[in-house]
Amino acid sequence: MNIELISVGTEILLGDILNTNVSFLSRELASIGINVYRHTTVGDNKKRLLKSLENAFENSDTVIITGGLGPTDDDITKECAGEFFKRDFFFDKYSFEKIKNYVDNCKNDNSLPKNNKKQAMIPENSIILENLWGTAPGIILEKENKKIILLPGPPKEMKNMFEKYVKPFLKKQSNKKFISKYIRLYGIYESTLEEKIKHILIKQTNPTVALYAKSTEVLIRVTASGTNNVTINNLIENKIKEIKDIVGDYIYLIGDEGVANTQSELSSVVAKMLINNSLTISTAESITGGMIASSLIDNEGISKSFIEGIVCYSNESKMNNLDVKLSTLDKYTAVSKEVALEMLIGIKNKTKTDISIITTGYASQMKNSEINVGLVYIGIYYKDNKIIKKYELKGNRNKIREKVTKEALNLIRKLILDDYKE
Amino acid sequence: MNIELISVGTEILLGDILNTNVSFLSRELASIGINVYRHTTVGDNKKRLLKSLENAFENSDTVIITGGLGPTDDDITKECAGEFFKRDFFFDKYSFEKIKNYVDNCKNDNSLPKNNKKQAMIPENSIILENLWGTAPGIILEKENKKIILLPGPPKEMKNMFEKYVKPFLKKQSNKKFISKYIRLYGIYESTLEEKIKHILIKQTNPTVALYAKSTEVLIRVTASGTNNVTINNLIENKIKEIKDIVGDYIYLIGDEGVANTQSELSSVVAKMLINNSLTISTAESITGGMIASSLIDNEGISKSFIEGIVCYSNESKMNNLDVKLSTLDKYTAVSKEVALEMLIGIKNKTKTDISIITTGYASQMKNSEINVGLVYIGIYYKDNKIIKKYELKGNRNKIREKVTKEALNLIRKLILDDYKE
Repeated sequence: MNIELISVGTEILLGDILNTNVSFLSRELASIGINVYRHTTVGDNKKRLLKSLENAFENSDTVIITGGLGPTDDDITKECAGEFFKRDFFFDKYSFEKIKNYVDNCKNDNSLPKNNKKQAMIPENSIILENLWGTAPGIILEKENKKIILLPGPPKEMKNMFEKYVKPFLKKQSNKKFISKYIRLYGIYESTLEEKIKHILIKQTNPTVALYAKSTEVLIRVTASGTNNVTINNLIENKIKEIKDIVGDYIYLIGDEGVANTQSELSSVVAKMLINNSLTISTAESITGGMIASSLIDNEGISKSFIEGIVCYSNESKMNNLDVKLSTLDKYTAVSKEVALEMLIGIKNKTKTDISIITTGYASQMKNSEINVGLVYIGIYYKDNKIIKKYELKGNRNKIREKVTKEALNLIRKLILDDYKE
Repeated sequence: MNIELISVGTEILLGDILNTNVSFLSRELASIGINVYRHTTVGDNKKRLLKSLENAFENSDTVIITGGLGPTDDDITKECAGEFFKRDFFFDKYSFEKIKNYVDNCKNDNSLPKNNKKQAMIPENSIILENLWGTAPGIILEKENKKIILLPGPPKEMKNMFEKYVKPFLKKQSNKKFISKYIRLYGIYESTLEEKIKHILIKQTNPTVALYAKSTEVLIRVTASGTNNVTINNLIENKIKEIKDIVGDYIYLIGDEGVANTQSELSSVVAKMLINNSLTISTAESITGGMIASSLIDNEGISKSFIEGIVCYSNESKMNNLDVKLSTLDKYTAVSKEVALEMLIGIKNKTKTDISIITTGYASQMKNSEINVGLVYIGIYYKDNKIIKKYELKGNRNKIREKVTKEALNLIRKLILDDYKE
């Protein structure tokens, strides 16, 4: 079955409202194995909607139209659908009673018209979907193998009516289930990843595998279908294992959270590792200026682990808080292995935490001085071991700072992983 | 001119991502007087895209396609557009160099993935739009009176390239000029703002006025049209004055930066004020955990102003760094006016900066204790004056932390403004 989704509403074409209905419907339809062929949005215009219906049925056998079922003259969806399938309309007393009752029960809402006969006009030979969340009934029209399903535009009404009537109606047409898992990777470029798992991407059928680039990370979606959960989950687990064998080093999370979640989950993975292993941490940030601390503190339950952070952006602060020597600053400058090491020892001595992390670097050019923008040192004290790593990063100020933060979090993640591997 | 917007991407059809590109483009096109006829979304499928292009040109003379310009095999937009207008492709060395440079700047290893050559293949006789925010160049193809404009799918790239190249290109097709100014407000809800300026919103013709809610801020777009800049700017200035008279207290920036810039500009406004007035600042953050420091350090030139930040998430850190007394913590708890005051005095004594700011509060529920989530204190030492403000905020953990950060920045902004008013 192919479905086309048509949204009706000039307010969407003007960009005044964001069309969340189509992403909801697409996701729901994908979850029951139905292929969405196309989304179309048209204004409240009869000619345009009829044209879009015609275009839609060139490729699909079912069309879901949302919006344009209101009581006013520019609501034309029902009329178009009826005309398209050449149906007459009748006045449905039962629907009219339901609408009247709904309006009576919402006396405070003055937007509801009192004598609303238009919404009770129904095309003949159709299935009426009672609207318990508003006034406009939904309608299913069938003609030969073609179906038009009409749902109201307000998301609350649309979603509830889809769940209650349309999803069961469509499910009956298919008996397949779909499940997805998401793999999150850090430190690998999308094209490099694609190169490495090309053989998987090319011959995919069930499960299907898709890549999504997200800032400095990549996400892999693995979706399998079948008739029972155990089989589907097995298909997914095998495919994930196959991917893990190739790029396992870059994977930091495998879970159910999908592409809709645009946030990096690196900090929450690290926070969980700290909390679960009762590890304490302290930070001394120059170039990242509090970004590492803040991204850790974004996570609930971190208070026992996160002991202290210093934002030592100035040299004074490096000296006062971390005992960095003026002579070291003078001799090597603030962005040097030597200063990084003194910062690291300083924060470790001050806080005595299991892990200490420091950053120093140049995020942008300074006036009257030639500096090496992108030169960065990250230092980590992990239990009794010190590491200082040097980077030469490219990008604008914020990009560089974000990269240093993610790189620092990933270094911590790997050290804990190695330590608690057994 | 009629425009159809086509979005390409299976991930949109699967509902994995919300299509924000179309609402952005629709709004922007409306602001320059261009009629959007239809939105269409198709998967990464050549036949379907060609069909949609055919359908689109039945009603429109210009089609903007977003997405499907990536380096992988299922990115087929450019190939379809070329085929539709029967164009050959050539390998554009200049674009390839640009892509290579961009990739080099984003990665630490210099190996350009082989398939990125694909992004430098350009249809003959087209206008190339250089992508400064990613790898895929945009392209404008013209044939007789028809135009196809290709833009990359990632919203940041798409928005910036639309602003820089496409908007001016489309504006040239009309002899009317459109100019927009953007007013940024903090501390007022969209609905309250709408109520207050309802009379302006209702009778708008030229200029047009539109509101956009952006997280905890609101943006007002004022767009005027005409044939000469002086007249247009006068229309805008008068409308801005009218709005300022009503909600001037909430306005923190009036400028040319549009809806594309989704970042709050509060921190850059505050950073500029600090730098321009040679004011120094220090922070001691508990609930915000480095977010205030980090958002200030996001801004170039801040190194002379930002002296030091402490992320004192634990009680130990509050005592060790800020001389908060154990007895005060025991008696009043860490989230109290009394502890806030000791933190404030502590950071001021430690750093002697012109401005010191502290935060303490509960961002989420803790195990085994009944706390008042959303209770927050912000303290500011501005020169010789101390202020402690209490808040009861709503939202999830990250929302609360973000609100506190913006509120703190706005308090600093107002104090500097009052002080340097004359």
